[in-house]
Amino acid sequence: MITLSLIGIGTGNPEHLTLAAIREINAADLILIPRKGNAKADLAALRETLCSDVLTNPATQIVSFDMPVRDATNPDYLRGVEDWHNAIATVWNRAITQHLPQGGQVALLVWGDPALYDSTLRIAARLLPPERIRSIPGIMSINALTAAHTIALNEIGAAFMVTTGRHLREKGWPEGVDTLVVLLDGDCSFTHIDPADVQIYWGAYVGMPEQILRAGALSDVADEIIRVRAEARRHHGWIMDIYLLRRVVTSQDSQVLP
Amino acid sequence: MITLSLIGIGTGNPEHLTLAAIREINAADLILIPRKGNAKADLAALRETLCSDVLTNPATQIVSFDMPVRDATNPDYLRGVEDWHNAIATVWNRAITQHLPQGGQVALLVWGDPALYDSTLRIAARLLPPERIRSIPGIMSINALTAAHTIALNEIGAAFMVTTGRHLREKGWPEGVDTLVVLLDGDCSFTHIDPADVQIYWGAYVGMPEQILRAGALSDVADEIIRVRAEARRHHGWIMDIYLLRRVVTSQDSQVLP
Repeated sequence: MITLSLIGIGTGNPEHLTLAAIREINAADLILIPRKGNAKADLAALRETLCSDVLTNPATQIVSFDMPVRDATNPDYLRGVEDWHNAIATVWNRAITQHLPQGGQVALLVWGDPALYDSTLRIAARLLPPERIRSIPGIMSINALTAAHTIALNEIGAAFMVTTGRHLREKGWPEGVDTLVVLLDGDCSFTHIDPADVQIYWGAYVGMPEQILRAGALSDVADEIIRVRAEARRHHGWIMDIYLLRRVVTSQDSQVLP
Repeated sequence: MITLSLIGIGTGNPEHLTLAAIREINAADLILIPRKGNAKADLAALRETLCSDVLTNPATQIVSFDMPVRDATNPDYLRGVEDWHNAIATVWNRAITQHLPQGGQVALLVWGDPALYDSTLRIAARLLPPERIRSIPGIMSINALTAAHTIALNEIGAAFMVTTGRHLREKGWPEGVDTLVVLLDGDCSFTHIDPADVQIYWGAYVGMPEQILRAGALSDVADEIIRVRAEARRHHGWIMDIYLLRRVVTSQDSQVLP
């Protein structure tokens, strides 16, 4: 029988590992490491470094597999993602059958937390029933960002929204919240909103040695973030960034004159 | 000189501790543990257990302080919170001056992550400039909940909102999201929304040995959650719960008849 552990490993800082993640890594018979091509090669290497740092179980096998590539030309985005997830499930299945023919515990190391903008859970559900899948929570980029800026996610008693660059571009600032956390934004979508009274707390490679932070009034720092982001992307060959936008609510009641 | 570390310690499972949190606990000259009265006494004990589990630095002092109580009768909620935070800052200041007269590193252990519905950062800002405050991210109840249910926080490419019971009661389901995570809800506020097509994933004491989970269609399980919650609260003398609501979007386009 096969069981599958999806282990949140944080955002690239080996110290983000929890004791639960370390225990789970050592409980695995097989750890599957995806290879995603050259640009992100350093991330595959980081996963291997994490394992070698904390793995003390000599019986654990570490096996790499080539990550299928999503067909970005598919005009139906959700269908394209669906096909891609099926392809990944097929590759996992092949690797597991080959390396654990007698069954056992398989682990996948997931950046951040398996619950956040990651499809490992959905792919796992194609192979196994829920009771044979375990999820180990991890430090998310959201937490690494707010910790790096030493800011709170929420204002006192207030709500916040976690969204994508695409939503921000297409729908603008959503109703009912003054704090937005934006992920998966390759296009600096903060340039699509009215910057008045908006503070931005931006970070790239949060938690990693390459970490870059910028914060300030959106109108003041937007251009600099665009420039720094482009430079860093060129330099490293890839970038992963995230930001928090907070609308500074001016107390209108006291300022409205009849 | 005093520096202050706010250390996220997760939701009560000692294995939620990250390697960074353990390092930071051991780097502290003084760890301040709040005492909150009898009902939550087990939580103070849990903080002390965490320390004794991972603290190897013999020079680290552990000191308890009595947590001031918020004046819940203040009709101005934000003002009441403000006064309370001032009172806590005063108590910290007194304890730090008394136990670290020569200066040093002070640590506070924060449930979950210091950025989420916690005021430790805001209180710290009353005592020290930002560059002398460090925040160590931790596993949040949000992550512990989704991991316990092995569900994703977001649907593919979709946004989600994190909000409070009060907002859900007063404002209903917000625009633009199909996933809501609700915290700080002492009143089972999910009873205030239309349960049609809503799934709930509820958890109390998530990550702790006392953990209770329920999930299902909101219309099916709401009554049971209310009952189980009341029983658990009576039994333990306190409760901390959280839930995720997800609207199952039915494809209306294909069902609308002319």
